[in-house]
Amino acid sequence: MKLYGYWRSSAAYRVRIALNLKGLDAELISVHLVKGGGEQHSESYAALNPQELVPTFIDSDQDGNAFVLTQSMAIVEYLDEQYPQAPLLPSTTQAKASVRALALSIACEIHPLNNLRVLQYLSDTLKVSDEAKNQWYHHWIAQGFSALEQQLAHCAGRYCFGDSVTVADLCLIPQIYNAKRFNVDLTPYPTICRIWDNCHQLDAFINAAPEQQADAS
Amino acid sequence: MKLYGYWRSSAAYRVRIALNLKGLDAELISVHLVKGGGEQHSESYAALNPQELVPTFIDSDQDGNAFVLTQSMAIVEYLDEQYPQAPLLPSTTQAKASVRALALSIACEIHPLNNLRVLQYLSDTLKVSDEAKNQWYHHWIAQGFSALEQQLAHCAGRYCFGDSVTVADLCLIPQIYNAKRFNVDLTPYPTICRIWDNCHQLDAFINAAPEQQADAS
Repeated sequence: MKLYGYWRSSAAYRVRIALNLKGLDAELISVHLVKGGGEQHSESYAALNPQELVPTFIDSDQDGNAFVLTQSMAIVEYLDEQYPQAPLLPSTTQAKASVRALALSIACEIHPLNNLRVLQYLSDTLKVSDEAKNQWYHHWIAQGFSALEQQLAHCAGRYCFGDSVTVADLCLIPQIYNAKRFNVDLTPYPTICRIWDNCHQLDAFINAAPEQQADAS
Repeated sequence: MKLYGYWRSSAAYRVRIALNLKGLDAELISVHLVKGGGEQHSESYAALNPQELVPTFIDSDQDGNAFVLTQSMAIVEYLDEQYPQAPLLPSTTQAKASVRALALSIACEIHPLNNLRVLQYLSDTLKVSDEAKNQWYHHWIAQGFSALEQQLAHCAGRYCFGDSVTVADLCLIPQIYNAKRFNVDLTPYPTICRIWDNCHQLDAFINAAPEQQADAS
């Protein structure tokens, strides 16, 4: 297995946590998202992933050929089905749906707006000031985390959904990491902060952190 | 079952197609996203869905209580598990993952950037001109559709993934609808256009279209 990612990519970070929780060993290949305009735009990487985004995951298909998969949430669901040890979703249909909704409220509503390419567009094309860009970042985190904090009040235990780690935690932790990096005040979100602390009792989360990666600089 | 949505919401549109394909009857409740600043921000709706977004879906749990679910992709996956007629995902793990990746390349990479609340932020807070806002819209469609067109070349048949309708089509059709509404030139995307035509041979897609909804204006 191979995982093309980047130490600071939240989406790659989600997949790293999943691999660690499941005890799977993938070769981590660094795609530098900034250097030289971004290696994700190179011809060879674009041939692998036309979206020119990380992560890209490679496993083998039943004939031993490369099976190339994009989109972190699809990769995580794939890992959970193909390698069922340490399940990342509850077993009942309604609980599973609730966990996916939590995960997607981050993956579809917060992260896409604060992604590198979007921040670059704000600066480079819309000529938005650094201050306004920072406000944009904080705005979408605040919108998303306020709603999530309310939802977690109904379903969180030690983690986002009860006392087992799920895909919701895999999305939440990288998003909190980013929020901290941009100096977002997290005191209005006590449940979110508690889940951060609890996840960081686990090696799978600790070892997946950006600063622990070989390409961190 | 109840579906809180809005005729022009792409995310609600996805769920309407899924309900139609599965022959499920849900009460459609309109949440006007624009009138009076947006009914999704009302106290009663925010109590149901703290994200203040549509859709919200309500089914019954095993005890007959209301089961409230947010996030269109979680709703669609829930419908597919709970009501397995007319499956929306292939049966093998790798094919399922590939379909989810296609769907998420729209749901996570295109749609969130062109959502109403984002366009409102560009106008109201960043004071971006209508022309620059229109370019923003076109930019993310072009980025997303160019990559998708390449990926579909490997896997599309009559629909996005072979000859059966999947969740990828449920995401693609509302996104094309939006692109057409914003006058995006679709001629560079022949596969995407072919899938639009093929889906519109099916009543499930025709009847889910925005203009067919009771709250269309």
